[in-house]
Amino acid sequence: MKIIHIICFSFSLLSSYTSHANSYTNDFCVANLMLPNTPSGYPCKPEKSVTMNDFVFHGFVPGNTIEPFNFRITTAFVDSFSGLNGLGISAARGDIDINGTIPMHTHPDATELLIIVKGRVTVGFITSTKVYSKVVKHGDIVVIPKGQLHFIANSGVRKAILFEAFTSSNPSVQILDNQLFGNNLLTSLIAQTTALDVSQIKKLKAQFGGSN
Amino acid sequence: MKIIHIICFSFSLLSSYTSHANSYTNDFCVANLMLPNTPSGYPCKPEKSVTMNDFVFHGFVPGNTIEPFNFRITTAFVDSFSGLNGLGISAARGDIDINGTIPMHTHPDATELLIIVKGRVTVGFITSTKVYSKVVKHGDIVVIPKGQLHFIANSGVRKAILFEAFTSSNPSVQILDNQLFGNNLLTSLIAQTTALDVSQIKKLKAQFGGSN
Amino acid sequence: MKIIHIICFSFSLLSSYTSHANSYTNDFCVANLMLPNTPSGYPCKPEKSVTMNDFVFHGFVPGNTIEPFNFRITTAFVDSFSGLNGLGISAARGDIDINGTIPMHTHPDATELLIIVKGRVTVGFITSTKVYSKVVKHGDIVVIPKGQLHFIANSGVRKAILFEAFTSSNPSVQILDNQLFGNNLLTSLIAQTTALDVSQIKKLKAQFGGSN
Amino acid sequence: MKIIHIICFSFSLLSSYTSHANSYTNDFCVANLMLPNTPSGYPCKPEKSVTMNDFVFHGFVPGNTIEPFNFRITTAFVDSFSGLNGLGISAARGDIDINGTIPMHTHPDATELLIIVKGRVTVGFITSTKVYSKVVKHGDIVVIPKGQLHFIANSGVRKAILFEAFTSSNPSVQILDNQLFGNNLLTSLIAQTTALDVSQIKKLKAQFGGSN
Amino acid sequence: MKIIHIICFSFSLLSSYTSHANSYTNDFCVANLMLPNTPSGYPCKPEKSVTMNDFVFHGFVPGNTIEPFNFRITTAFVDSFSGLNGLGISAARGDIDINGTIPMHTHPDATELLIIVKGRVTVGFITSTKVYSKVVKHGDIVVIPKGQLHFIANSGVRKAILFEAFTSSNPSVQILDNQLFGNNLLTSLIAQTTALDVSQIKKLKAQFGGSN
Amino acid sequence: MKIIHIICFSFSLLSSYTSHANSYTNDFCVANLMLPNTPSGYPCKPEKSVTMNDFVFHGFVPGNTIEPFNFRITTAFVDSFSGLNGLGISAARGDIDINGTIPMHTHPDATELLIIVKGRVTVGFITSTKVYSKVVKHGDIVVIPKGQLHFIANSGVRKAILFEAFTSSNPSVQILDNQLFGNNLLTSLIAQTTALDVSQIKKLKAQFGGSN
Repeated sequence: MKIIHIICFSFSLLSSYTSHANSYTNDFCVANLMLPNTPSGYPCKPEKSVTMNDFVFHGFVPGNTIEPFNFRITTAFVDSFSGLNGLGISAARGDIDINGTIPMHTHPDATELLIIVKGRVTVGFITSTKVYSKVVKHGDIVVIPKGQLHFIANSGVRKAILFEAFTSSNPSVQILDNQLFGNNLLTSLIAQTTALDVSQIKKLKAQFGGSN
Repeated sequence: MKIIHIICFSFSLLSSYTSHANSYTNDFCVANLMLPNTPSGYPCKPEKSVTMNDFVFHGFVPGNTIEPFNFRITTAFVDSFSGLNGLGISAARGDIDINGTIPMHTHPDATELLIIVKGRVTVGFITSTKVYSKVVKHGDIVVIPKGQLHFIANSGVRKAILFEAFTSSNPSVQILDNQLFGNNLLTSLIAQTTALDVSQIKKLKAQFGGSN
Repeated sequence: MKIIHIICFSFSLLSSYTSHANSYTNDFCVANLMLPNTPSGYPCKPEKSVTMNDFVFHGFVPGNTIEPFNFRITTAFVDSFSGLNGLGISAARGDIDINGTIPMHTHPDATELLIIVKGRVTVGFITSTKVYSKVVKHGDIVVIPKGQLHFIANSGVRKAILFEAFTSSNPSVQILDNQLFGNNLLTSLIAQTTALDVSQIKKLKAQFGGSN
Repeated sequence: MKIIHIICFSFSLLSSYTSHANSYTNDFCVANLMLPNTPSGYPCKPEKSVTMNDFVFHGFVPGNTIEPFNFRITTAFVDSFSGLNGLGISAARGDIDINGTIPMHTHPDATELLIIVKGRVTVGFITSTKVYSKVVKHGDIVVIPKGQLHFIANSGVRKAILFEAFTSSNPSVQILDNQLFGNNLLTSLIAQTTALDVSQIKKLKAQFGGSN
Repeated sequence: MKIIHIICFSFSLLSSYTSHANSYTNDFCVANLMLPNTPSGYPCKPEKSVTMNDFVFHGFVPGNTIEPFNFRITTAFVDSFSGLNGLGISAARGDIDINGTIPMHTHPDATELLIIVKGRVTVGFITSTKVYSKVVKHGDIVVIPKGQLHFIANSGVRKAILFEAFTSSNPSVQILDNQLFGNNLLTSLIAQTTALDVSQIKKLKAQFGGSN
Repeated sequence: MKIIHIICFSFSLLSSYTSHANSYTNDFCVANLMLPNTPSGYPCKPEKSVTMNDFVFHGFVPGNTIEPFNFRITTAFVDSFSGLNGLGISAARGDIDINGTIPMHTHPDATELLIIVKGRVTVGFITSTKVYSKVVKHGDIVVIPKGQLHFIANSGVRKAILFEAFTSSNPSVQILDNQLFGNNLLTSLIAQTTALDVSQIKKLKAQFGGSN
């Protein structure tokens, strides 16, 4: 007897959610990746087509080795993990070979939490006035505040594994070498704005694919 | 004479708002409920089609009685009150019969401000370490911080009336009994993760419409 | 040799951004002004069609003189500067003739930073309890907190030039005279809610284009 | 037997909260009103001294009649309701006598949700380009977007009662007459920046307590 | 020669940061845990006393076994990892024995990202209308939107290890059994607001340490 | 007669603000720079000691020339302009000599709006995949999205003047050369994480004051 009543209750309470084709609660907003993004994230998939699969990411395993820095990266960002949309979090996995390094880079829009799963690495971030750097190992966590220039170098005798969480569902990754030497910015302008020698710039442009 | 000048002024100052079909000030963003929601709310109706009616809700009156808890609920959320879109506020009205109760529930995304309009009720919210509970009456206000498990029980000798405001234009309502006993989550899994007895779970699944 | 490797790295790291037609990093979100606005701003243009021109505004020069207040205004808001979308900042330029003034107004959704480029002006904002006002000149900056009623009057002997920055990419401008005397709000209602004399209201309605 | 185990669990899980004198969860932050405010609200009282009384406000009843506008106001803001701190919500009650009005005013930092509890009122807000106004009554709700100039006039034949919720725990109230006529801003400057007649300004300065 | 010049530059550019005893950039705000918390986090330690150790957490290893649910938890929240302050992220590690479970609970103020490091678990969260649940294993990630009731049960044949990241530097953990059965909330009130049988409540109060 | 009444009204309405020594409205929060900062900004000065001077900055004029980059910078950030506290905006002025440049740098926590007041400059920002760069002049505005690596080079035949607004009341300035070459980060580690030659690093360490 009471079943009917409580079901009615649920329906009446939630009727505002279901009276329109696109209605949605605010609890989550799974991305419809086919629609244009907005400053707050992608528009939401209709709630009725959302399943648990939208909240699960498979394949958080090592990627291919990247030269010349000898590391592998796997990202679980919103474009491959649509349930993250609007929730302000995402993940990545880094595998660094012996003598490998994740080179100097920034995430302009995200703080990074770095869990050292295996091995021994030197992690550092740099402000205009100071270097914050330390050798850390399995069982340690490091936090890199938003927008800071940072690096991770394998300083152990075996491979290192890192799990990373970001305070953005779609963090960008700005690698310094790609920024300076991987595009068509004029060599003279780079020299003027970095104080680097022209010969150094040309050498690295050849290595990282830049022109001009 | 001066009329023309000042009208020109208004036009020139506001020209950026009117030069595109979909332009909009940031003062408000009345929901176009036919378009997909986003993490920040629904896309805006064109400003020229916005009227005062978008900012007014009618029918903030008692709903039908809900069994077995003997209360009525009326919601003024964005899907029936499109002017709330993007403004981070909404309202509800609860009418609780004698011996009635609004059962244990959470609003994962909203703080609740509870104005007791008539009657005497026991209001409480519960953290892992403590119960915050009190009998309140006409002339009192209670605030329930965001995401807390809470309840409201009529503890007086007549009907109680409550007006509620939420810090979300579309708060969700998660009723504990519906969550535990109103769906197809396996009885064994519920038992394992709540320590409730299987017989208790089955009894309440029968009452609240659950299966498995 | 290494060129190929690092390019592969870039591709693999960024693959999540490029696998969908509408994918986008969070670093910026240039407005597609043809789509409906949302509470967080306009939907983004596809990143591949974004150029430096989206991040540049031309024409930050004096506008036409506005009567009866003798000032000129030029706005660089999102609708004419699409790169501002989602970034929470915009600009305006005010040129105030001798004896001119920017009349009492509010920006409901933006703090204003006011750089005095040339001349001498009296700048003030007013709360219910206090006036904050001062004569300032070239080399001074004033901040007007969000939503405050404020004014700027030329108190020097030559033209004044002001550059303004706002904490919104699309600030609204609410001019008190237009609000009170430039529309069809009933004269009797204005009198009742402002304590102004009916004759004063009718005189200014004639000047600012109001009716009723 | 199991009691001990689960208590240990609670303790270990929550140990980070209790190891420092001032530790606090983020679930709420009851104001310590004796310490200086911050941009995000008051510092928190120690959690161990928080009780349910911090989350309850008493005295949401009519205040004294205010002349010349014939209304009464009662506020439940953070300074008299410390549990609101950091939660972004507060309340007020307005009682408007026959022919009374809540005069033109703004809340620079808060959207207002207005529940008409009794009577019939004309509610309106005004932008530079348009008036949004309507007669509403018991059973209606109106939303006034953040920072808009608005008014409420009793347009019925009996007293009106209004309950208001704000999207700030400490909204400011800027009454236009107090701003223009209740302080020491020079009459000539008011005339220049509002186009009001000097005689009108002097008359209202006499009424609202202004000088100069 | 140029050393002196560029150092001067650094000093002049950063002079605003160093002219007051408590000045601080916004890049990070390491918690001074001895001062009262605020709604935005703890006050900052002086920048000159900040070292890399503030950004590193040691001891992200298994804790002691918790009965009756057979799991271990280790938290890296702001109170033991002061560099997280104001950055909106933190971490925890869960080790679940065979047949163990992390019982039904909510984090009212945080989304949870769950990386399965080892083993096979059933993860689920529950809304009023639907169960989202799945068996996941090493190499999978699950996201639990903010405030949702959720559980994790070991469904494999060996121990499971989980790394969790939260969108708060100090997430609270509300365990349903502790909330309902671990305090002094009246049994009759629990029965009325949950529909649970009195005998069930008393049995679990005995187990979880509740009274009344 | 009415004076007394309206004054009473002001007092009763605002009484919650004045009943405690540290009470404060939310309209602004002028920094007390002697107290420790928080993640949301400095604690507020008592409102009664706030004056218009807190909202005005003097000295927005050229600074001393900085070698080797031939530019001057003047900042109006919260530590020298306490009224900015909590308002999320600040300003700077750059004067660039002929052939001068503001070198590669980032503001991790702020978008920059750049008004070209005089002269002709090349402005650019760089992502991992693209350069956004253009020659701009008097009358142009450029926006640099938050956290992007950017530069400004004088490309005209006379001095250039720039006014800059930031979306933070205390933006940090991270100059790439200072980060890489102005501290004690090991040369070998820099080489490993940037691909720069050791000889280049040593040369620039000598120039920018670095060691190791």
